[in-house]
Amino acid sequence: MFALDSRLQQDTLVVGDFPLSRLLLMNDSRYPWFILVPRRSDVSELFQLDEPDRAQLWQETNTFAEVLKGVLAADKMNVATLGNVVSQLHMHVIARFREDAAWPAPVWGCGEAVAYAPEQVEVLVVRLKMALPGDFVWGEV
Amino acid sequence: MFALDSRLQQDTLVVGDFPLSRLLLMNDSRYPWFILVPRRSDVSELFQLDEPDRAQLWQETNTFAEVLKGVLAADKMNVATLGNVVSQLHMHVIARFREDAAWPAPVWGCGEAVAYAPEQVEVLVVRLKMALPGDFVWGEV
Repeated sequence: MFALDSRLQQDTLVVGDFPLSRLLLMNDSRYPWFILVPRRSDVSELFQLDEPDRAQLWQETNTFAEVLKGVLAADKMNVATLGNVVSQLHMHVIARFREDAAWPAPVWGCGEAVAYAPEQVEVLVVRLKMALPGDFVWGEV
Repeated sequence: MFALDSRLQQDTLVVGDFPLSRLLLMNDSRYPWFILVPRRSDVSELFQLDEPDRAQLWQETNTFAEVLKGVLAADKMNVATLGNVVSQLHMHVIARFREDAAWPAPVWGCGEAVAYAPEQVEVLVVRLKMALPGDFVWGEV
């Protein structure tokens, strides 16, 4: 049975579900930093997903990256699965801007997270609501 | 026409070609750090690849990550496309070990690269030669 890793649970807000992946928002207002977690148990490497799931994760990742870049007019999308700390397979999709706190370095390990104010999350969600595909199911945010 | 970005050219050794991507080895012996560059021009985001190329890059990335993890008995594979500095689309595939120089942090921005001695590259290549798929064409290393 799928259960979200406790560290991910602690650091993020649940946005909703793609057909395969739960979409999380890192509670760090310095970057629009999202994480897709395939709702599968005991998977830590991409190639441990079966072929249809792997293709689905790729499609969800690409769709979301394209939507997010368009909605926010980001300068660059960063897409990564690392998992050195949290072993549950998760894919980061981060909208980057030339003036953001870490640019041009990656976001990991750069200072301390700055939690969102509720109205900041609302603004993000409203913008995403108009752009995400019809098979996305909204969650608690 | 495809031309490799000059920064990538300077920092890497060419291992060879998958059907879509050129496989490069970062000249940094601290990590087995490879880069796949789709041989397409003017692409910086994943979703700018057409659908067949996107699927092909994903397949090459996953195949290579699985091979590399197996060959080196790595603890974790890191797979990422960032492109904040080099805009030419490129996919990092890095074998990580609990005792490596940056663990558990990502490898980017961690100290200075330590160039390979030729015999170290040879050892890596010999191990990969037995494991890479038949459609991989070896290059200059």
